[in-house]
Amino acid sequence: MNRSMIIYLIGCLLEVEAALLLLPALIGLGFQERSALIFLLVAAGAALLGLLPILRRPKNTSFYAREGFVTTALSWLLMSAVGALPFRLSGQIPRYIDALFETVSGFTTTGASILTDIESLDKCMLFWRSFSHWVGGMGVLVFMMAILPLAGAGGQKLYLMRAESPGPSVDKLSPKIQTTATWLYGIYLGLTVMCFLLLCAGGMDWFTSMCMTFGAAGTGGFGVLGTSFATYSYTCKVVCTVFMLLFGINFNFYYLVIIRRFRDAIHMEEIWWYLAVYFFAALTILLNLGRAGMLGDTAHGIDAFFSVASIMTTTGYATVDFNLWPTYSRIILVTIMFSGACAGSTGGGIKISRLIIAIKSVSKELRRMVQPRTVRHVRLDGKKVEHATAMNTLAYIVIFVMIYIVSLLLISVDGFDTTTSFTAVAATINNIGPGLNVVGPAGNFSQFSVLSKLVLIFDMLAGRLEIWPLLFLFTPSTWKGQQGLR
Amino acid sequence: MNRSMIIYLIGCLLEVEAALLLLPALIGLGFQERSALIFLLVAAGAALLGLLPILRRPKNTSFYAREGFVTTALSWLLMSAVGALPFRLSGQIPRYIDALFETVSGFTTTGASILTDIESLDKCMLFWRSFSHWVGGMGVLVFMMAILPLAGAGGQKLYLMRAESPGPSVDKLSPKIQTTATWLYGIYLGLTVMCFLLLCAGGMDWFTSMCMTFGAAGTGGFGVLGTSFATYSYTCKVVCTVFMLLFGINFNFYYLVIIRRFRDAIHMEEIWWYLAVYFFAALTILLNLGRAGMLGDTAHGIDAFFSVASIMTTTGYATVDFNLWPTYSRIILVTIMFSGACAGSTGGGIKISRLIIAIKSVSKELRRMVQPRTVRHVRLDGKKVEHATAMNTLAYIVIFVMIYIVSLLLISVDGFDTTTSFTAVAATINNIGPGLNVVGPAGNFSQFSVLSKLVLIFDMLAGRLEIWPLLFLFTPSTWKGQQGLR
Repeated sequence: MNRSMIIYLIGCLLEVEAALLLLPALIGLGFQERSALIFLLVAAGAALLGLLPILRRPKNTSFYAREGFVTTALSWLLMSAVGALPFRLSGQIPRYIDALFETVSGFTTTGASILTDIESLDKCMLFWRSFSHWVGGMGVLVFMMAILPLAGAGGQKLYLMRAESPGPSVDKLSPKIQTTATWLYGIYLGLTVMCFLLLCAGGMDWFTSMCMTFGAAGTGGFGVLGTSFATYSYTCKVVCTVFMLLFGINFNFYYLVIIRRFRDAIHMEEIWWYLAVYFFAALTILLNLGRAGMLGDTAHGIDAFFSVASIMTTTGYATVDFNLWPTYSRIILVTIMFSGACAGSTGGGIKISRLIIAIKSVSKELRRMVQPRTVRHVRLDGKKVEHATAMNTLAYIVIFVMIYIVSLLLISVDGFDTTTSFTAVAATINNIGPGLNVVGPAGNFSQFSVLSKLVLIFDMLAGRLEIWPLLFLFTPSTWKGQQGLR
Repeated sequence: MNRSMIIYLIGCLLEVEAALLLLPALIGLGFQERSALIFLLVAAGAALLGLLPILRRPKNTSFYAREGFVTTALSWLLMSAVGALPFRLSGQIPRYIDALFETVSGFTTTGASILTDIESLDKCMLFWRSFSHWVGGMGVLVFMMAILPLAGAGGQKLYLMRAESPGPSVDKLSPKIQTTATWLYGIYLGLTVMCFLLLCAGGMDWFTSMCMTFGAAGTGGFGVLGTSFATYSYTCKVVCTVFMLLFGINFNFYYLVIIRRFRDAIHMEEIWWYLAVYFFAALTILLNLGRAGMLGDTAHGIDAFFSVASIMTTTGYATVDFNLWPTYSRIILVTIMFSGACAGSTGGGIKISRLIIAIKSVSKELRRMVQPRTVRHVRLDGKKVEHATAMNTLAYIVIFVMIYIVSLLLISVDGFDTTTSFTAVAATINNIGPGLNVVGPAGNFSQFSVLSKLVLIFDMLAGRLEIWPLLFLFTPSTWKGQQGLR
């Protein structure tokens, strides 16, 4: 494994993070907050620390899948460890483990919080929390590739992109990875600006609107009020619902629309399924609320549409405490926690396209069992899905379930009720934020033990990076082999 | 599809069931119960109905995988529909849907009950409930193959056996299927007799001992008292724990031991994992109960060992209301509901060997991702696992999870709490019996709506027959194609 290249890239990442930390510093200075200085301090420290590895360019630029996975996993760990410092150093989050939980929750676009009193935070802290969603949503390494002229051939970029981007396979929008990264961030920025302006038009002040836009864009879910999204105007709720759904769509769709390949855009199976699941869930919940006599009283029509969009895209904003809804509504919300949004979007979960491939593989298996000699292939968007991709998809779902169960066992030692334990893991590994009961929209994650918080931090990272990169960190064979050799 | 052959085999099955129904009739006559006559009546009816198809032997004996799956699914449905009649006709279970639930629960060795007052049932009814566990445990079609000289070549026997037997693949103990079936039933009968005698020695009366032995042998779980296993002697609890574990072991093990291939027997990976999971679960639950201060008070050491054996082998007997245990213990019990026992045993669940293959496939996938060009194979017991088997295993787990989720959504309309809904499906699809909360060891399934009961009946059958046979019933292409053609 090429360790010097990995260290070099992590140095680059620290420089990028130092630059990003200047933004909350600016916001803090604008609001005349003393904690702004802490951001400057941490930024300076990160910049200095990052200088060491990048002063000398590694001669050996060989870079393969294993290096890609390891770089990605280490980058996200280090980025979170550094990003947590301002919370701890300012004393606004007194314990480092909590600051780390909050930061990982931010970068992984989970939105699960340990804060009991959000309003007491400085504006620059609130900004940094929300901004981390935006950075993590599309991926900080993708960002780095879009802006930095990195050394070496396309290899490292391809493998980094594969390791950081969600979904069973990465479609390159352009033969050049840097162009693909730039396109992705361009679309991302465009949608973000539109969302921001529309929220402002809906009556939100610019600061709140910016924070809420970051949360919606990255499908994160940190708010600036303890009531999450409940107190904003009807227009804002509609705008947010629509934009959460838009950010949960595979970004290839927008690219295809921009380059006017409308026919290909319309034929993306995943998007149709995504919308079908969304409307099925929202409408049956509406029916369920109506039958339970809760509509118009404690919940309105928009709340069903908002909540389903929020959970399915794994954002996690809440306009209402859906923990109080009837069992069917609660269980359908838990179910769409797992389906998640489209691959190639900023959303989390297992991803719709993985589920489509899984269902088609099962149906192929059914046919193979009665006609073993006929060769068949799974098809998606009319294209053949490689056998290896199908196998990888099924293996992903299985390892996902296993990590889920082990996490559940570990946090159950804390002794919360079964629903709390079950949904706390679901809400973190799927990068959603709120679960049910103790961790419901009206609750938070502060009461868990340090061990449980570490488990949930692992789950958030496993969910965002789609498990494999973290598994490589814990596989002994990754660390064997000489410098530069595989 | 060869429909005439399927109908012929179902006719044979009805004759077998008619014969089996004579046993509870005998028991009832012995205890001078009037309901014994109802068993005679139903037996006569089944025998007459079964005569029609078997009078004329089908000329076309071609029989393939599809016919095997369909015959198995239809046999189990019909067998349950007929087996439910005595409960309904005697009025001891007033509604047919409840009688059907109870009977399916019996044959599938689930042990989930809708009865609120078990002790009020006649002895012959109690016998039939428990005896259905014994019949369903090893499989009624396997039984039929062991005793009847069926028409045609080995094809139909092989495919019937594959469709009815649990586990990712069927090992033929002997080149002749009939010999394999006879071996399996011989071992089964031997262990059953031993268990019966030891329970009698432990102080149980012969009738109770017989019923409890049937439940342990088939890993079913119907008892004859509302308190399940709580009131029996310490010796009986130990005997039952040991025998539940023995019946959860792959029967190939016993065969290998009998033919003195000890080395092969010792090298069965699945059994080691099975025991490892068992002791891990039992010992950590013991620790958890100790820390919660419940040991010696509301639970004893034997209760932990008994409960874990009962749940892991998917039997479902209870010596204690584990619903009152702390969260960790409850969650570990729910987890081993899914792992289940060994393939080729009478136990349910996903099966340990499937999980071993799944974990090895995931780890192979991990290596493939960094070295795509190296060809590797998953190995079990030192033998290569075919790629198709690995794929089938992963597909099985995925379809299992999907059926689970759909069932959960359907029964959640009833509005029970999340834990009840979640474990009701887990307890039926894994053929266990009791779940937690409303369906815990102290509760039952009577409160569910008719729709939910139908869903849970489907789940019990799906769990016992390992899903595929039922899926073929609902696949339109199964029913296309001409008589005798595929």
